[in-house]
Amino acid sequence: MREQLQVFGNRLSPFSRRVELALKLKGIKYQYVEEDIPNKSHLLRKYNPLYKKVPVLVHNGNPIAESLVILEYIDEHWKTNPILPQHPLDRAQARFLAKYIDDKFFGAWRKAVRSQREGREKVVKAVEEACKALEAVENELNSNNKFFGGDKIGLVDIVGIFIGYWVPIMQTALGFEILSSHRFPKLSKWSEDLMSHSVVQEILPPKPDLFAYTQTRLLSKNLGSKL
Amino acid sequence: MREQLQVFGNRLSPFSRRVELALKLKGIKYQYVEEDIPNKSHLLRKYNPLYKKVPVLVHNGNPIAESLVILEYIDEHWKTNPILPQHPLDRAQARFLAKYIDDKFFGAWRKAVRSQREGREKVVKAVEEACKALEAVENELNSNNKFFGGDKIGLVDIVGIFIGYWVPIMQTALGFEILSSHRFPKLSKWSEDLMSHSVVQEILPPKPDLFAYTQTRLLSKNLGSKL
Repeated sequence: MREQLQVFGNRLSPFSRRVELALKLKGIKYQYVEEDIPNKSHLLRKYNPLYKKVPVLVHNGNPIAESLVILEYIDEHWKTNPILPQHPLDRAQARFLAKYIDDKFFGAWRKAVRSQREGREKVVKAVEEACKALEAVENELNSNNKFFGGDKIGLVDIVGIFIGYWVPIMQTALGFEILSSHRFPKLSKWSEDLMSHSVVQEILPPKPDLFAYTQTRLLSKNLGSKL
Repeated sequence: MREQLQVFGNRLSPFSRRVELALKLKGIKYQYVEEDIPNKSHLLRKYNPLYKKVPVLVHNGNPIAESLVILEYIDEHWKTNPILPQHPLDRAQARFLAKYIDDKFFGAWRKAVRSQREGREKVVKAVEEACKALEAVENELNSNNKFFGGDKIGLVDIVGIFIGYWVPIMQTALGFEILSSHRFPKLSKWSEDLMSHSVVQEILPPKPDLFAYTQTRLLSKNLGSKL
Protein backbone atom coordinates (compact mmCIF):
# COMPACT_ATOMS: atom_id res chain seq x y z
CA MET A 1 0.00 0.00 0.00
CA ARG A 2 1.26 3.45 -0.85
CA GLU A 3 1.55 5.61 2.25
CA GLN A 4 -0.82 8.51 2.54
CA LEU A 5 0.30 11.39 4.68
CA GLN A 6 -1.44 14.72 5.15
CA VAL A 7 -0.77 17.71 7.38
CA PHE A 8 -3.74 19.96 8.13
CA GLY A 9 -2.13 23.24 9.12
CA ASN A 10 -2.07 26.97 8.89
CA ARG A 11 0.94 28.70 7.39
CA LEU A 12 1.17 31.27 10.20
CA SER A 13 0.76 28.75 13.02
CA PRO A 14 4.04 27.84 14.77
CA PHE A 15 2.33 24.67 16.02
CA SER A 16 1.61 23.33 12.55
CA ARG A 17 4.93 24.54 11.16
CA ARG A 18 6.78 22.43 13.73
CA VAL A 19 5.11 19.30 12.39
CA GLU A 20 6.17 20.18 8.85
CA LEU A 21 9.70 20.93 10.03
CA ALA A 22 9.99 17.49 11.64
CA LEU A 23 8.77 15.76 8.46
CA LYS A 24 11.11 17.80 6.25
CA LEU A 25 14.11 17.12 8.50
CA LYS A 26 13.41 13.41 8.05
CA GLY A 27 12.84 13.79 4.32
CA ILE A 28 9.25 12.53 4.51
CA LYS A 29 6.90 13.63 1.73
CA TYR A 30 3.41 14.79 2.72
CA GLN A 31 0.40 16.57 1.33
CA TYR A 32 -0.24 19.92 2.96
CA VAL A 33 -3.79 21.16 3.50
CA GLU A 34 -4.08 24.85 4.46
CA GLU A 35 -6.84 25.58 6.97
CA ASP A 36 -8.54 28.94 7.16
CA ILE A 37 -8.70 29.42 10.94
CA PRO A 38 -11.99 31.35 11.14
CA ASN A 39 -13.59 28.90 8.68
CA LYS A 40 -12.27 25.50 9.65
CA SER A 41 -13.00 22.70 7.24
CA HIS A 42 -15.38 19.83 7.83
CA LEU A 43 -12.40 17.47 7.62
CA LEU A 44 -10.44 19.28 10.35
CA ARG A 45 -13.48 19.15 12.65
CA LYS A 46 -13.85 15.47 11.89
CA TYR A 47 -10.18 14.64 12.43
CA ASN A 48 -9.77 16.70 15.61
CA PRO A 49 -13.27 16.77 17.15
CA LEU A 50 -12.10 17.62 20.67
CA TYR A 51 -9.97 20.66 19.88
CA LYS A 52 -10.87 21.46 16.24
CA LYS A 53 -7.38 22.89 15.90
CA VAL A 54 -4.41 22.61 13.58
CA PRO A 55 -2.11 20.77 13.28
CA VAL A 56 -3.51 17.36 12.52
CA LEU A 57 -1.40 14.65 10.92
CA VAL A 58 -3.41 12.05 9.01
CA HIS A 59 -1.40 8.90 8.29
CA ASN A 60 -3.14 6.31 6.12
CA GLY A 61 -6.48 7.66 7.31
CA ASN A 62 -5.55 7.77 11.02
CA PRO A 63 -5.67 11.27 12.50
CA ILE A 64 -3.25 12.42 15.22
CA ALA A 65 -3.69 15.80 16.93
CA GLU A 66 -1.64 17.93 19.34
CA SER A 67 1.75 18.94 17.99
CA LEU A 68 3.88 17.39 20.76
CA VAL A 69 2.03 14.08 20.34
CA ILE A 70 2.50 14.29 16.56
CA LEU A 71 6.24 14.94 16.93
CA GLU A 72 6.63 11.84 19.11
CA TYR A 73 4.67 9.82 16.54
CA ILE A 74 6.81 11.05 13.66
CA ASP A 75 9.99 10.18 15.56
CA GLU A 76 8.72 6.71 16.41
CA HIS A 77 7.39 5.83 12.98
CA TRP A 78 10.23 7.25 10.86
CA LYS A 79 13.50 6.50 12.59
CA THR A 80 15.89 8.43 10.29
CA ASN A 81 17.32 11.71 11.65
CA PRO A 82 15.95 11.27 15.16
CA ILE A 83 14.30 14.30 16.75
CA LEU A 84 14.59 13.03 20.32
CA PRO A 85 17.95 12.11 21.89
CA GLN A 86 18.73 8.44 22.39
CA HIS A 87 19.27 8.18 26.16
CA PRO A 88 16.12 8.12 28.34
CA LEU A 89 17.47 10.85 30.63
CA ASP A 90 18.23 13.18 27.70
CA ARG A 91 14.82 12.38 26.23
CA ALA A 92 13.17 13.31 29.54
CA GLN A 93 15.05 16.63 29.63
CA ALA A 94 14.05 17.44 26.04
CA ARG A 95 10.39 16.55 26.74
CA PHE A 96 10.41 18.61 29.92
CA LEU A 97 11.75 21.69 28.14
CA ALA A 98 9.40 21.29 25.14
CA LYS A 99 6.45 21.06 27.55
CA TYR A 100 7.78 24.03 29.52
CA ILE A 101 7.93 26.16 26.35
CA ASP A 102 4.33 25.24 25.47
CA ASP A 103 2.85 25.49 28.97
CA LYS A 104 4.85 28.15 30.73
CA PHE A 105 6.47 30.38 28.12
CA PHE A 106 3.63 30.29 25.63
CA GLY A 107 1.15 30.91 28.45
CA ALA A 108 3.15 33.96 29.59
CA TRP A 109 3.50 35.17 25.99
CA ARG A 110 -0.26 34.97 25.43
CA LYS A 111 -0.81 36.92 28.63
CA ALA A 112 1.57 39.62 27.40
CA VAL A 113 -0.32 39.84 24.10
CA ARG A 114 -3.67 40.07 25.86
CA SER A 115 -2.41 42.55 28.45
CA GLN A 116 -2.58 45.27 25.83
CA ARG A 117 -6.29 45.48 26.48
CA GLU A 118 -5.51 46.49 30.04
CA GLY A 119 -3.14 49.41 29.67
CA ARG A 120 0.59 50.12 29.83
CA GLU A 121 1.21 49.05 33.41
CA LYS A 122 -0.22 45.58 32.85
CA VAL A 123 1.81 45.22 29.64
CA VAL A 124 5.07 46.00 31.45
CA LYS A 125 4.26 43.45 34.16
CA ALA A 126 3.20 40.72 31.70
CA VAL A 127 6.26 41.29 29.48
CA GLU A 128 8.53 40.94 32.50
CA GLU A 129 6.78 37.70 33.45
CA ALA A 130 7.30 36.34 29.93
CA CYS A 131 10.99 37.32 30.12
CA LYS A 132 11.30 35.48 33.44
CA ALA A 133 9.70 32.39 31.86
CA LEU A 134 12.17 32.65 28.98
CA GLU A 135 15.20 32.81 31.28
CA ALA A 136 14.81 29.11 32.06
CA VAL A 137 15.01 28.32 28.33
CA GLU A 138 18.12 30.54 27.93
CA ASN A 139 19.77 28.74 30.85
CA GLU A 140 19.20 25.33 29.28
CA LEU A 141 21.10 26.27 26.12
CA ASN A 142 24.63 24.90 26.28
CA SER A 143 27.07 27.44 24.80
CA ASN A 144 29.17 24.63 23.31
CA ASN A 145 26.25 23.47 21.16
CA LYS A 146 24.73 25.18 18.17
CA PHE A 147 21.26 23.83 18.92
CA PHE A 148 19.37 22.42 21.90
CA GLY A 149 19.69 19.12 20.07
CA GLY A 150 23.53 19.49 19.89
CA ASP A 151 24.92 19.74 16.34
CA LYS A 152 21.56 18.82 14.87
CA ILE A 153 18.09 20.25 15.25
CA GLY A 154 16.11 18.33 17.88
CA LEU A 155 12.74 18.40 19.66
CA VAL A 156 13.41 21.58 21.68
CA ASP A 157 14.63 23.45 18.60
CA ILE A 158 11.54 22.40 16.65
CA VAL A 159 9.22 23.45 19.48
CA GLY A 160 11.34 26.56 20.08
CA ILE A 161 11.01 27.99 16.55
CA PHE A 162 8.16 30.02 18.00
CA ILE A 163 10.69 31.78 20.26
CA GLY A 164 13.31 32.09 17.54
CA TYR A 165 11.13 33.47 14.74
CA TRP A 166 7.55 34.29 15.74
CA VAL A 167 8.44 36.17 18.94
CA PRO A 168 10.94 38.65 17.37
CA ILE A 169 8.52 39.58 14.55
CA MET A 170 5.37 39.65 16.66
CA GLN A 171 6.91 41.63 19.52
CA THR A 172 7.95 44.37 17.05
CA ALA A 173 4.43 44.45 15.63
CA LEU A 174 2.98 44.58 19.16
CA GLY A 175 5.37 47.25 20.43
CA PHE A 176 7.10 45.45 23.28
CA GLU A 177 10.30 43.43 23.68
CA ILE A 178 10.71 39.99 25.19
CA LEU A 179 13.52 38.32 23.22
CA SER A 180 16.38 40.84 23.20
CA SER A 181 20.05 40.15 22.47
CA HIS A 182 21.25 41.88 25.65
CA ARG A 183 19.00 39.90 28.00
CA PHE A 184 19.08 36.63 26.02
CA PRO A 185 22.44 36.46 24.23
CA LYS A 186 22.45 32.66 23.89
CA LEU A 187 18.87 32.41 22.57
CA SER A 188 19.54 35.28 20.14
CA LYS A 189 22.58 33.51 18.69
CA TRP A 190 20.63 30.22 18.57
CA SER A 191 17.77 31.97 16.79
CA GLU A 192 20.17 33.27 14.11
CA ASP A 193 21.69 29.82 13.60
CA LEU A 194 18.31 28.10 13.52
CA MET A 195 16.75 30.56 11.09
CA SER A 196 19.69 30.25 8.70
CA HIS A 197 19.22 26.46 8.48
CA SER A 198 18.05 25.57 4.97
CA VAL A 199 15.25 23.23 6.07
CA VAL A 200 13.96 25.68 8.69
CA GLN A 201 13.83 28.38 6.03
CA GLU A 202 11.45 26.21 4.01
CA ILE A 203 8.78 26.30 6.72
CA LEU A 204 8.98 29.91 7.92
CA PRO A 205 6.08 32.12 6.86
CA PRO A 206 7.14 35.42 5.22
CA LYS A 207 7.92 38.12 7.79
CA PRO A 208 5.57 40.75 6.27
CA ASP A 209 2.64 38.31 6.44
CA LEU A 210 3.26 37.47 10.08
CA PHE A 211 3.81 41.15 10.92
CA ALA A 212 0.63 42.20 9.14
CA TYR A 213 -1.38 39.39 10.78
CA THR A 214 -0.14 40.45 14.21
CA GLN A 215 -1.01 44.08 13.65
CA THR A 216 -4.36 43.61 11.97
CA ARG A 217 -5.65 40.65 13.95
CA LEU A 218 -4.05 40.65 17.39
CA LEU A 219 -3.30 44.31 17.95
CA SER A 220 -6.56 45.70 16.59
CA LYS A 221 -8.55 43.04 18.48
CA ASN A 222 -6.79 43.91 21.73
CA LEU A 223 -7.04 47.66 21.34
CA GLY A 224 -10.53 47.33 19.95
CA SER A 225 -11.97 46.46 23.33
CA LYS A 226 -10.52 49.71 24.72
CA LEU A 227 -12.18 51.84 22.05
CA MET B 1 26.80 0.93 41.13
CA ARG B 2 23.65 0.33 43.14
CA GLU B 3 20.72 2.20 41.65
CA GLN B 4 19.33 5.05 43.70
CA LEU B 5 15.73 5.96 43.08
CA GLN B 6 13.65 8.50 44.97
CA VAL B 7 10.16 9.85 44.51
CA PHE B 8 9.43 13.25 46.04
CA GLY B 9 5.67 13.29 46.37
CA ASN B 10 2.65 14.10 48.44
CA ARG B 11 0.32 11.31 49.52
CA LEU B 12 -2.83 13.22 48.51
CA SER B 13 -1.50 14.32 45.12
CA PRO B 14 -2.84 12.28 42.17
CA PHE B 15 0.13 13.50 40.14
CA SER B 16 2.72 11.99 42.45
CA ARG B 17 0.64 8.87 43.08
CA ARG B 18 0.65 8.10 39.34
CA VAL B 19 4.45 7.98 39.39
CA GLU B 20 4.41 5.55 42.29
CA LEU B 21 1.76 3.42 40.56
CA ALA B 22 3.92 3.12 37.44
CA LEU B 23 6.95 2.07 39.48
CA LYS B 24 4.93 -0.45 41.51
CA LEU B 25 3.35 -1.96 38.37
CA LYS B 26 6.87 -2.56 37.08
CA GLY B 27 8.06 -3.89 40.44
CA ILE B 28 10.70 -1.17 40.84
CA LYS B 29 11.80 -0.36 44.38
CA TYR B 30 12.14 3.30 45.34
CA GLN B 31 12.54 5.52 48.35
CA TYR B 32 9.55 7.74 48.97
CA VAL B 33 10.00 11.26 50.36
CA GLU B 34 6.80 12.94 51.55
CA GLU B 35 6.66 16.67 50.84
CA ASP B 36 4.63 19.04 52.97
CA ILE B 37 3.07 21.21 50.24
CA PRO B 38 2.93 24.51 52.16
CA ASN B 39 6.50 23.94 53.40
CA LYS B 40 8.35 22.45 50.46
CA SER B 41 11.79 21.11 51.22
CA HIS B 42 15.04 22.63 50.07
CA LEU B 43 15.68 19.46 48.06
CA LEU B 44 12.37 19.71 46.15
CA ARG B 45 13.11 23.33 45.26
CA LYS B 46 16.58 22.30 44.12
CA TYR B 47 15.37 19.35 42.04
CA ASN B 48 12.43 21.16 40.42
CA PRO B 49 13.51 24.83 40.40
CA LEU B 50 11.08 25.90 37.63
CA TYR B 51 7.86 24.53 39.12
CA LYS B 52 8.84 23.63 42.71
CA LYS B 53 6.14 20.96 42.57
CA VAL B 54 5.77 17.26 43.27
CA PRO B 55 6.30 14.74 41.82
CA VAL B 56 10.01 14.62 41.15
CA LEU B 57 11.79 11.37 40.35
CA VAL B 58 15.48 11.37 41.21
CA HIS B 59 17.37 8.55 39.53
CA ASN B 60 21.03 8.19 40.51
CA GLY B 61 21.09 11.90 41.35
CA ASN B 62 19.33 13.03 38.15
CA PRO B 63 16.02 14.80 38.79
CA ILE B 64 13.05 14.50 36.41
CA ALA B 65 9.92 16.61 36.91
CA GLU B 66 6.41 16.70 35.40
CA SER B 67 4.45 13.49 35.86
CA LEU B 68 3.83 12.75 32.16
CA VAL B 69 7.54 13.19 31.42
CA ILE B 70 8.41 10.95 34.38
CA LEU B 71 6.01 8.21 33.19
CA GLU B 72 7.65 8.20 29.74
CA TYR B 73 11.06 7.98 31.41
CA ILE B 74 10.02 5.10 33.62
CA ASP B 75 8.63 3.21 30.61
CA GLU B 76 11.79 3.80 28.57
CA HIS B 77 14.25 2.92 31.31
CA TRP B 78 12.47 -0.12 32.77
CA LYS B 79 11.00 -2.13 29.93
CA THR B 80 9.06 -4.75 31.94
CA ASN B 81 5.26 -4.38 32.07
CA PRO B 82 5.10 -1.59 29.49
CA ILE B 83 2.85 1.36 30.33
CA LEU B 84 2.57 2.60 26.76
CA PRO B 85 1.24 0.41 23.94
CA GLN B 86 3.73 -0.92 21.41
CA HIS B 87 2.45 0.46 18.09
CA PRO B 88 3.25 4.16 17.37
CA LEU B 89 -0.39 4.91 16.49
CA ASP B 90 -1.69 3.41 19.75
CA ARG B 91 1.04 5.26 21.64
CA ALA B 92 -0.06 8.53 20.03
CA GLN B 93 -3.68 7.90 21.03
CA ALA B 94 -2.70 7.11 24.62
CA ARG B 95 -0.49 10.22 24.83
CA PHE B 96 -3.26 12.37 23.34
CA LEU B 97 -5.80 11.15 25.87
CA ALA B 98 -3.40 11.45 28.83
CA LYS B 99 -2.63 15.05 27.78
CA TYR B 100 -6.34 15.72 27.30
CA ILE B 101 -7.11 14.55 30.83
CA ASP B 102 -4.40 16.81 32.26
CA ASP B 103 -5.07 19.87 30.10
CA LYS B 104 -8.77 19.81 29.39
CA PHE B 105 -10.49 17.73 32.06
CA PHE B 106 -8.25 18.77 34.93
CA GLY B 107 -8.55 22.40 33.83
CA ALA B 108 -12.36 22.14 33.81
CA TRP B 109 -12.33 20.34 37.18
CA ARG B 110 -10.20 23.08 38.75
CA LYS B 111 -12.60 25.67 37.40
CA ALA B 112 -15.53 23.80 38.95
CA VAL B 113 -13.74 23.72 42.32
CA ARG B 114 -12.93 27.44 42.16
CA SER B 115 -16.42 28.36 40.93
CA GLN B 116 -17.70 27.88 44.47
CA ARG B 117 -16.37 31.32 45.28
CA GLU B 118 -18.73 32.74 42.71
CA GLY B 119 -22.12 31.39 43.68
CA ARG B 120 -24.49 28.59 42.69
CA GLU B 121 -25.08 29.65 39.09
CA LYS B 122 -21.37 29.61 38.26
CA VAL B 123 -20.97 26.21 39.94
CA VAL B 124 -23.74 24.66 37.83
CA LYS B 125 -22.16 26.03 34.65
CA ALA B 126 -18.62 24.94 35.57
CA VAL B 127 -19.79 21.45 36.61
CA GLU B 128 -21.56 21.03 33.27
CA GLU B 129 -18.39 22.08 31.44
CA ALA B 130 -16.36 19.53 33.38
CA CYS B 131 -18.95 16.85 32.51
CA LYS B 132 -18.67 17.80 28.84
CA ALA B 133 -14.88 17.50 29.04
CA LEU B 134 -15.29 14.10 30.66
CA GLU B 135 -17.59 12.82 27.90
CA ALA B 136 -14.63 12.57 25.53
CA VAL B 137 -12.85 10.30 28.02
CA GLU B 138 -15.97 8.13 28.44
CA ASN B 139 -16.23 7.79 24.66
CA GLU B 140 -12.64 6.56 24.36
CA LEU B 141 -13.24 3.65 26.71
CA ASN B 142 -13.81 0.47 24.73
CA SER B 143 -16.54 -1.63 26.38
CA ASN B 144 -14.70 -4.83 25.43
CA ASN B 145 -11.70 -3.82 27.53
CA LYS B 146 -11.40 -3.66 31.27
CA PHE B 147 -8.92 -0.79 31.15
CA PHE B 148 -7.89 1.92 28.69
CA GLY B 149 -4.70 -0.13 28.34
CA GLY B 150 -6.74 -3.27 27.41
CA ASP B 151 -6.38 -6.16 29.89
CA LYS B 152 -3.61 -4.36 31.70
CA ILE B 153 -3.31 -0.95 33.29
CA GLY B 154 -1.68 1.49 30.87
CA LEU B 155 -0.77 5.18 30.61
CA VAL B 156 -4.35 6.48 30.40
CA ASP B 157 -5.44 4.40 33.40
CA ILE B 158 -2.49 5.68 35.44
CA VAL B 159 -3.20 9.29 34.49
CA GLY B 160 -6.94 8.67 34.89
CA ILE B 161 -6.79 7.50 38.53
CA PHE B 162 -7.61 11.11 39.35
CA ILE B 163 -10.98 10.63 37.61
CA GLY B 164 -11.56 7.18 39.08
CA TYR B 165 -10.74 7.92 42.73
CA TRP B 166 -10.08 11.58 43.53
CA VAL B 167 -13.11 12.96 41.66
CA PRO B 168 -15.78 10.76 43.34
CA ILE B 169 -14.49 11.55 46.84
CA MET B 170 -13.77 15.22 46.25
CA GLN B 171 -17.07 15.93 44.47
CA THR B 172 -18.98 14.54 47.48
CA ALA B 173 -16.95 16.73 49.82
CA LEU B 174 -17.53 19.74 47.57
CA GLY B 175 -21.25 19.11 47.12
CA PHE B 176 -21.54 18.69 43.37
CA GLU B 177 -21.50 15.74 40.97
CA ILE B 178 -19.37 15.27 37.86
CA LEU B 179 -18.66 11.53 37.66
CA SER B 180 -22.04 9.82 38.01
CA SER B 181 -22.94 6.28 37.02
CA HIS B 182 -25.98 7.33 34.98
CA ARG B 183 -24.09 9.85 32.86
CA PHE B 184 -20.78 7.96 32.74
CA PRO B 185 -21.60 4.22 32.95
CA LYS B 186 -18.37 3.06 31.28
CA LEU B 187 -16.09 5.26 33.40
CA SER B 188 -17.94 4.23 36.56
CA LYS B 189 -17.41 0.53 35.79
CA TRP B 190 -13.78 1.23 34.86
CA SER B 191 -13.28 3.12 38.12
CA GLU B 192 -14.57 0.11 40.12
CA ASP B 193 -12.29 -2.29 38.27
CA LEU B 194 -9.28 0.00 38.57
CA MET B 195 -9.77 0.68 42.28
CA SER B 196 -10.08 -3.02 43.05
CA HIS B 197 -6.69 -3.73 41.44
CA SER B 198 -4.26 -4.77 44.18
CA VAL B 199 -1.39 -2.52 43.03
CA VAL B 200 -3.67 0.50 42.63
CA GLN B 201 -4.93 -0.04 46.17
CA GLU B 202 -1.38 0.32 47.46
CA ILE B 203 -1.10 3.90 46.22
CA LEU B 204 -4.56 5.27 47.05
CA PRO B 205 -4.69 7.71 49.97
CA PRO B 206 -7.33 6.86 52.61
CA LYS B 207 -10.76 8.22 51.68
CA PRO B 208 -11.33 10.07 54.99
CA ASP B 209 -8.02 11.92 54.60
CA LEU B 210 -8.83 13.04 51.06
CA PHE B 211 -12.38 13.97 52.08
CA ALA B 212 -11.16 15.97 55.08
CA TYR B 213 -8.47 17.71 53.05
CA THR B 214 -11.04 18.72 50.43
CA GLN B 215 -13.44 20.09 53.02
CA THR B 216 -10.95 21.86 55.22
CA ARG B 217 -8.56 23.16 52.56
CA LEU B 218 -10.45 23.58 49.31
CA LEU B 219 -13.99 24.21 50.49
CA SER B 220 -13.15 26.55 53.37
CA LYS B 221 -10.67 28.45 51.18
CA ASN B 222 -13.28 28.90 48.45
CA LEU B 223 -16.10 29.86 50.76
CA GLY B 224 -13.74 31.94 52.87
CA SER B 225 -13.49 34.60 50.22
CA LYS B 226 -17.28 34.95 50.25
CA LEU B 227 -17.41 35.58 53.98
